[in-house]
Amino acid sequence: MAASDGYPGLFITLEGGDGSGKSTQAAELERWLLEQGREVVRTREPGGTDFGVEVREIVLHHRGDITPRAEALLYAADRAHHIMTKVRPALERGAVVLQDRYIDSSLAYQGAGRDLGIGEVRQLSTWATGGLLPDLTVLLDLDEDAARLRLDASRTRYDRLEAEKSAFHRRVREVYLELAAAEPDRFLKLDATASVSSLADSIRARVSTLL
Amino acid sequence: MAASDGYPGLFITLEGGDGSGKSTQAAELERWLLEQGREVVRTREPGGTDFGVEVREIVLHHRGDITPRAEALLYAADRAHHIMTKVRPALERGAVVLQDRYIDSSLAYQGAGRDLGIGEVRQLSTWATGGLLPDLTVLLDLDEDAARLRLDASRTRYDRLEAEKSAFHRRVREVYLELAAAEPDRFLKLDATASVSSLADSIRARVSTLL
Repeated sequence: MAASDGYPGLFITLEGGDGSGKSTQAAELERWLLEQGREVVRTREPGGTDFGVEVREIVLHHRGDITPRAEALLYAADRAHHIMTKVRPALERGAVVLQDRYIDSSLAYQGAGRDLGIGEVRQLSTWATGGLLPDLTVLLDLDEDAARLRLDASRTRYDRLEAEKSAFHRRVREVYLELAAAEPDRFLKLDATASVSSLADSIRARVSTLL
Repeated sequence: MAASDGYPGLFITLEGGDGSGKSTQAAELERWLLEQGREVVRTREPGGTDFGVEVREIVLHHRGDITPRAEALLYAADRAHHIMTKVRPALERGAVVLQDRYIDSSLAYQGAGRDLGIGEVRQLSTWATGGLLPDLTVLLDLDEDAARLRLDASRTRYDRLEAEKSAFHRRVREVYLELAAAEPDRFLKLDATASVSSLADSIRARVSTLL
């Protein structure tokens, strides 16, 4: 259950709503880590493996409703496969894994927004991954209005999750903030409206202490 | 957690290896139940819903290995959706549900053959279904050599599960027998090498007591 389970590598996850800048910051951090001579593995959930792509296809584009437990189990299946076949081997050989979304996304999106308990979702995810936790989780916190504004500007079409209503996104943000407050050592919470370079500086400063 | 959770309907599952005659007996029982004026819903796992068909496609035909936990979670996702959207509504309106494979298949195939504990698989399935158990489970018991003989005669191609090796099928049968011994009230264990009509008679006799 320890962070990275004692692997020589470093496991960093990026969390936050869509439009919060996770991809941009992952790219910034990757560039810097490569300059430091580290191997970097960029990945994401859902969909970080071929298997995960098939699962993601069902989760995001299935016609008709998926029941909440079925959805939670699909995400957990993707996660189980991804962690076992891609993340653990990378950590084992000393790479830095930069992952877009992990367990905290499940807790925030499934546990808070639907009719499942956060404790149940956490238990499922823990079983799926054998209890692997990140060394660091960067939370790019963005209030709901700012998030919607960014998405409206960049997309012409929403997928199923993105189309869910505003109250849901507010609750997702609340859960993220609660998770970050409960685990201050694991989380680095940042205001996502700050400039790209200022955010990148903050993240590099924290990652430096872990390398 | 009660059988059928107190629904007016009746939940009957059929278990046993491939080639043990589950489909034949389900058809026989359906015909008889219809003569009794009952509504019958024939279904199966995996793949009892549109969602399940998509999941089944991944489980059975994904290229490359699926990790054991990921596979267990996929089956559980199919089950969660199937029970919630198809089985519970049918039981609610008083139908008899005849289902090919359910929780006992997961316990036998995933819990015994792979590196997952039966207790873990049971816990997953219980969470997925909200604890719904069958009123009756018909186990068509067939020893491994007889099962392989039947399959060889009827198929030209095995799917991924069918291709797994003999020791696995022996262990699956052992777990089935242990499950039946542990819950004699729920299970009706029959020798699948008996004649179709003799098996059908035995099943009808037991179902009569439950109608």
